[in-house]
Amino acid sequence: MARNPKHDVLFEPIQIGPKTMKNRFYQIPHCNGFGSERPLSQAYFRAMKAEGGYAACCTEYCSISPESDDTHRVSARIWDDGDIRNLSIMCAMLHEHGALAACELWYGGPHAPCMESRCVPRGPTQIPSDFEYLTYAKEMDKDDIHEVQQLYVDAAKRAREAGFDIVYVYGSHSYLPQQFLTPYYNHRTDEYGGSLENRARFWRETIEQVKNAVGSDCAIAVRISTDMFMGEAGTQLERDALPFVELVDDLVDVWDVNVSGISEWGEDATPSRFYAQGRQLPWQAAVKSVSKKPVLGVGRWTNPDAMVDAINSGQLDIIATCRPSISDPFLPQKIDEGRLDDIRECIGCNICISRWEIGGPPLICTQNATAGEEYRRGWHPERFERAANADNDVLVVGAGPAGMECAMILGKRGMRRVHLVEAQDDMGGIMRWIPQLPGLGEWARVVNYRKIQIDKLKNVEFIPDTTLDAQGVKDYGAEIVIVATGGYWATDGLNGATHDTIPGADASLAHILTPEQIMVEGKAVPGERVVIVDNDGYFMGVSLAEKLALEGKQVTMLTPMGHIAPYMHFTLEAPNMHRKLHKLGVEIVTYHMPTKIEAGGVTAAHVYDGDGHERTWEADATVLVTQRRSSEALFRELKDVDGRDALAAEGVAALYRIGDCEAPRLTADAIFSGHRLAREIDSPNPAVPLPYKRERRVPDSDALEDDLRELRVRREREAVPV
Amino acid sequence: MARNPKHDVLFEPIQIGPKTMKNRFYQIPHCNGFGSERPLSQAYFRAMKAEGGYAACCTEYCSISPESDDTHRVSARIWDDGDIRNLSIMCAMLHEHGALAACELWYGGPHAPCMESRCVPRGPTQIPSDFEYLTYAKEMDKDDIHEVQQLYVDAAKRAREAGFDIVYVYGSHSYLPQQFLTPYYNHRTDEYGGSLENRARFWRETIEQVKNAVGSDCAIAVRISTDMFMGEAGTQLERDALPFVELVDDLVDVWDVNVSGISEWGEDATPSRFYAQGRQLPWQAAVKSVSKKPVLGVGRWTNPDAMVDAINSGQLDIIATCRPSISDPFLPQKIDEGRLDDIRECIGCNICISRWEIGGPPLICTQNATAGEEYRRGWHPERFERAANADNDVLVVGAGPAGMECAMILGKRGMRRVHLVEAQDDMGGIMRWIPQLPGLGEWARVVNYRKIQIDKLKNVEFIPDTTLDAQGVKDYGAEIVIVATGGYWATDGLNGATHDTIPGADASLAHILTPEQIMVEGKAVPGERVVIVDNDGYFMGVSLAEKLALEGKQVTMLTPMGHIAPYMHFTLEAPNMHRKLHKLGVEIVTYHMPTKIEAGGVTAAHVYDGDGHERTWEADATVLVTQRRSSEALFRELKDVDGRDALAAEGVAALYRIGDCEAPRLTADAIFSGHRLAREIDSPNPAVPLPYKRERRVPDSDALEDDLRELRVRREREAVPV
Repeated sequence: MARNPKHDVLFEPIQIGPKTMKNRFYQIPHCNGFGSERPLSQAYFRAMKAEGGYAACCTEYCSISPESDDTHRVSARIWDDGDIRNLSIMCAMLHEHGALAACELWYGGPHAPCMESRCVPRGPTQIPSDFEYLTYAKEMDKDDIHEVQQLYVDAAKRAREAGFDIVYVYGSHSYLPQQFLTPYYNHRTDEYGGSLENRARFWRETIEQVKNAVGSDCAIAVRISTDMFMGEAGTQLERDALPFVELVDDLVDVWDVNVSGISEWGEDATPSRFYAQGRQLPWQAAVKSVSKKPVLGVGRWTNPDAMVDAINSGQLDIIATCRPSISDPFLPQKIDEGRLDDIRECIGCNICISRWEIGGPPLICTQNATAGEEYRRGWHPERFERAANADNDVLVVGAGPAGMECAMILGKRGMRRVHLVEAQDDMGGIMRWIPQLPGLGEWARVVNYRKIQIDKLKNVEFIPDTTLDAQGVKDYGAEIVIVATGGYWATDGLNGATHDTIPGADASLAHILTPEQIMVEGKAVPGERVVIVDNDGYFMGVSLAEKLALEGKQVTMLTPMGHIAPYMHFTLEAPNMHRKLHKLGVEIVTYHMPTKIEAGGVTAAHVYDGDGHERTWEADATVLVTQRRSSEALFRELKDVDGRDALAAEGVAALYRIGDCEAPRLTADAIFSGHRLAREIDSPNPAVPLPYKRERRVPDSDALEDDLRELRVRREREAVPV
Repeated sequence: MARNPKHDVLFEPIQIGPKTMKNRFYQIPHCNGFGSERPLSQAYFRAMKAEGGYAACCTEYCSISPESDDTHRVSARIWDDGDIRNLSIMCAMLHEHGALAACELWYGGPHAPCMESRCVPRGPTQIPSDFEYLTYAKEMDKDDIHEVQQLYVDAAKRAREAGFDIVYVYGSHSYLPQQFLTPYYNHRTDEYGGSLENRARFWRETIEQVKNAVGSDCAIAVRISTDMFMGEAGTQLERDALPFVELVDDLVDVWDVNVSGISEWGEDATPSRFYAQGRQLPWQAAVKSVSKKPVLGVGRWTNPDAMVDAINSGQLDIIATCRPSISDPFLPQKIDEGRLDDIRECIGCNICISRWEIGGPPLICTQNATAGEEYRRGWHPERFERAANADNDVLVVGAGPAGMECAMILGKRGMRRVHLVEAQDDMGGIMRWIPQLPGLGEWARVVNYRKIQIDKLKNVEFIPDTTLDAQGVKDYGAEIVIVATGGYWATDGLNGATHDTIPGADASLAHILTPEQIMVEGKAVPGERVVIVDNDGYFMGVSLAEKLALEGKQVTMLTPMGHIAPYMHFTLEAPNMHRKLHKLGVEIVTYHMPTKIEAGGVTAAHVYDGDGHERTWEADATVLVTQRRSSEALFRELKDVDGRDALAAEGVAALYRIGDCEAPRLTADAIFSGHRLAREIDSPNPAVPLPYKRERRVPDSDALEDDLRELRVRREREAVPV
C-alpha cells in the first residue's frame, strides 16, 4: 500500500540546529524502567522505534549527577564513563536506523530523594517536595548555582561523547529550571528570584553554557511546561512561559512544549478517561506563535489526520509521541505505507506509567505485549517466525483480550488453522463492556485492533455464538487447545482482606449486584441509595460509583483500604477521579470492612477498631467489587476429568490456558499471557515461559579475585590508634 | 578487655544437621536491597557480620523461580547459573571468616506480583494478596503442587552448588508453605486442605524432598510463623504450628521461629514504639518445648544478659538477629571482648525496613552509617584510616546527631583535635527530645552510643553551653570548621503542599505551637480542643497527637495527604499507630488543607473540591507540623558575610555544613552526612561525595558487537507469509 498524499507533510525533513530529522516523528523522553543500568534493554527498546520510522528518539529523564538520584524510581544517568559506554549503545543503534539520539538532561532538586546516592539535592528555596515524601533540598547560594550549572555542562559533554545528537535542558514536570521560573518553587529575593527576568536567569544561563559547550555538535532542546493549572503560584503561559521563550529563543534549536507540574503530571500524560488526543495544542500553538524555532509536543497522537492538521495549522512542527510510540513503535512506517488499520493505538490507560510510579519494574503496555521485551525476550512487534509446529491446528476457546491476542499471534506465526471460538456474538470479552464505563471509551481499541488483524489473517477463523463443553473441545479436532474463558467478579463477597465471603452477600438477590450484572446483564439497581464495597482498588469500583452517581443514585464507597482506588495513583488518574466523585457527592468511607449486608443496608467495622464497633450505612442496593475469580470450569473438566492422556488419545496433544482463566490480572497481563504462549508455542514446554535475558553484573574470576584480595587486605588493616 | 564469663554460653558451638556453628550468633534472613543483582555489595554486607563474629549469615528471601518475582521489591534469586555465580561470592566470603552461609528459599504465591518476570504465581486458593495490589495466584492442582515442589528441589541444588551450608524451606510471613498451613489462605477441599494433616502436607512433602536432595550436604532450616494474631482464620500456635513442628521435627535440622503474617509483619519486625526486646520468646519457647532440634529466633536482641537468659531458660538455642546485626555487625565480637558499651544498639525505628517496603533502594540504618556501604564506598564500621590531613584541628558547631557522628568519626580518624561545641547543656540535639515522645524511648540510643564513644576519644572534646557566632568561630583557631546547627519546624505554616505560609499561622501567638515549643520550651497547649496540621507525613504529627490525647486533649489531625503518617506504612508502624489513635478518639481528617487559622479554630478546604467550600474545626490550640527549615544563619554569615577568602586569611582553611543545617532529612541521613564528611575529610573536595561503585552491567566490545549483529540479522528477517 502507499501513503495517502495528505500525510506527506509528516515525512518532510526538518532542520533542528546542526542536525536534520528525516521526518516529523519524534519519540519524546519517556521512562521504560531500563535507565543506564540495563543498557541493551534500553538500546533495543529505543531502536525498535527507529526501525519503525521515528526520526529521533530520546532517553527518559537522564540524571546529570548523583545529587539528582530518583531511586526508588528508575531514570537514565550520565554520571560517569560507564554510563557513557552504556548509553552509547542506544545512540549507535538509533544511528543504524538513521534516527537521531536525544538525551534529556535532568536535575530534580527537591523531587530527587537520592535514596541510592544519599546526596543532598539543591533547589531554589527550601520547601519539601510536593511529590515525594520527606524530601528537602538545600537552598542554593551563588556558588551552588554555578556548580549545578557546571554539572549540566559536564553532563552535556558526556552526552556528546556517548553520541547524542540532541541535548536537552529539561525544564518541565517541576524539575529544576522550571522551579527557578515558578513562584511556587522560587521564593528567592536575589537576582534569581522575583521578576520574570530574575526567575528566568538560572535557566537562561544554563542553556547558554550548555550551548557554548556542545552547541556546535548537538542540537539544543528545551522542554518547557507552559502551565501548571494552579493559579498565581504555578507556571503560567502568558506571564512566564511565553516571555521565557522569547528571551532565549535564539539559544534554542527546538522547543518541546507541554503542560503541568510533577504532582499532577496526569495533566500532561493524560489518561484517556479525562482528555482526548491533542489536549496540549493550545499551549504548543502559543509557543509556536512567539518562537522562530521548530516546536514539538506530545498529545497522545495516534491519528495521522490530526497530526497533519496540527502541522498545517501552524500549531506544531514535529509530532512528538510517548505512549503511542510504546503502543506501536511502527506508527510512522504504517502511516507511510498507508496501513492505517494496522496501527495499534494507545488506549491512554497509563499502565505504562504506573510501573514508573511504582518504581523499579520495566514498563508494560496493554496494547503492545512486546514493549520492553525487545532485548530480553527478543520479541519484535511486527515480525514473527513460523512456528516449528505450524502444521497443527489450534482451538482457542474464548475471544477476550488474551484469546484474541493469542489467536492473532498464532496466525502470524503461520499455524495451519486457528479457530477462535466464542460463546458471545462478538469478540472482546470484558473489553466489550469495560469501555462502556464513564470515560473508558478509548479502551475499546484493545478489541478494534485485534478484530481487524484477525479478520486479515487467512488462517484464523472467528466462530461466535458457540459454547464448547469438554466433549465439544475433544470433538473439534485441533491438536492444540488453549482455554481462555476469562474470569468473573465474585458473587459472594469473597475478598483479599478477610479472605472470606461477606455475610449476606449473594448476588442472586435483587439488592446485591456484581459489575457484570450491572454492565452486561442489565440487572436493575434498586432504589436510591447504593453502597459499593470495593476491595479491588483499581478502576472498577470508582467507575461504577461515577456511573451510578451520574444516573442519580446516592452512592457510598466503602473500602477496607486507606484510599479508594489506590492503583489509580500510579496511573495518574487519581486526582481527577477524586475531583469527579467529590463533585458528584459520592461518600467515601475508607478503612471499613463490611461485616453484614442486608436488604436495607451495609454494616461495617473500622479495620483498626479493636472493640469491633459497627456502623450501618442505609442502602437499597449493594455492589460487590470484592475480587475476581477464574472461569476455569472447562479447563478443569478437560484436565481433571479427562486428563492429558485421554485427551492425547482423542487427538488433543496439548492443553493450555491463558489470561484471566488462569489468574485474573490486569488486561495488559492477560494479553501478555496470550502473546507469550503464542510466541513460545513451539518451545519444549510452552506452559512455562522461557528464561529471559537479565542484565546484571556477573563478575568474572579476575574481578572476584581482586575483590577478595581487597577484603583480606582490609581485614589485616589496623584501626588508627588515637 | 575480656568476655564476662556469664556470657560464655553465647560462644559455645552448636551442631545443626551436618554443620557446626562456632557460636550462638546467627544473622537471620533480612533484606538489604542488593539481591543477586549486586553480588559484591551483597557479599561484603554479609561478610562484615561474619567478620564481626556471627557464626552464620543468611541471604534475604531468595526466590526459587521467576514465578516468585517480587519486583518492585528486591529479593535474592537463585534462578540460574548467573545467580549461582553471584551468590557463591557471598558464600566464599562468609567461609573466609569461618561463618556458615544460609539461603532462604522463597516462593511467594499470591504475594509475588511478578512485575519483572510477568509470570503467574501459583497458590493454594485463588484469593488476591492481602499485601500487594491486584495480585492473584493460579489455584494449584496436583500437577502444580508437584511442579512447585520440584522448583524447591532444583533451587536447593543450586544453593548447594553456590556453597550454601544451610537451606531453608521458608514458611513464615505468609509465604507459600504457611499459606498451605493456614485456613486464611487455604480453602482447599482435597488432601492439601482441611485437617491439620492435610494443610501440613504440602510443606511436609517439600521439606522431605529438599532434605532428600541436599540434606546430607546442607542443614535443613525451617522458618515458621507460629501466630498471625487474627483468630481462627490465621496461623495459630496450638492448632497449627506446634503439631506441624512435631510432625516434621525429624526432617528439620534447625527451627527458625517467629510470628505474624505479611500484611502486618511489624508484629514480627517490631518497631520499638510498640514492643520491647524478646517479644517473640513465648512462641519460640513453645516450639522448643516440642522439638528435639535447635531453635533460633529473632527478638531485636542487643542485650547479652537477655540473650543468655533466653538460652539458659531453655527458650532458645541460637540468638538470631536481624536489625541489631545491621546496627552493629560486630555485636558478637564486642560481647566476646567485654566491650558492651561499644555496642551500637538498634533503636527499632525500622528505617532499614522502610527501604525494602518502598522497593528498590539499598537499606539504610539510623545507627550505622556504614550499613550497605561496605563494598560500594569501602567503609568498615570499626576500622578507620588516619586522615591525610590529621594534623588539623576541627571545630564542629552543634552536637546533634550529625555533629556527634562527624566529631566521633573525625576522632577515630586521628585528627589532632576535634572540638564539638554545643549551645545546650548536653549532646543530642533533636534526639534529646524526640525520645520523649510516646513510645520512642529507645531512639535515645542514638545519643547514648555516641556520647560514650566521644568520651573515650582523647582527641575529641565536647564543649557544652557555648553559643558561637561567626566571630567566635573565626577566633576559635581550628583550620576546619563544620557547621551542624540543625533545623527547626516552620513557625508560619510554610509547607510542601501549598508552598506558602498558612494565613493566621504564627507560633509567637499563645494558641499556635510548634513541636519544639511543646517538647523543648514547655509552651502550654491551651484549652481542650487541639488541631494538629500535618504536612510532614512521618512520626511527628501522630506522636504529638498521641501525647496530647493521652494528656486528655480532644485531638483532630488535619492533613492534605490521603493518609496520616504515610511513611509509617513503610516502617511497619502504621497499623498499631492507627489502632492507638482510634482508641484515643483522635479525629482524622485527610485531604484537607487549612486556609486559615484563628484563635477559635482551623478552617480548611478539601484539596479536591474545585469550588473551594470550606469547613471549620473548632480548636483552642493549633500545632504546626508543616515542614522543617535549616538553621543556617551561622553558616550563611561565615560563608556570605565573611567569605572563604577572608576565613582563610583568619586561618579557617575549610568550611562545611552537615545534617539538618544543610537540608532537614531523616536522622539516618543526617548521621550519614556527618559520617560521610568525616570519612572523606581528606579527599580533594570533601564537600562533594566521592563516587561510589555501582554494580551494573557494562557490556564489553564483544558483547556489544554480538548484539548489534543480532539486531542486523533481525532487521533482514522477513515476516512469515500467511
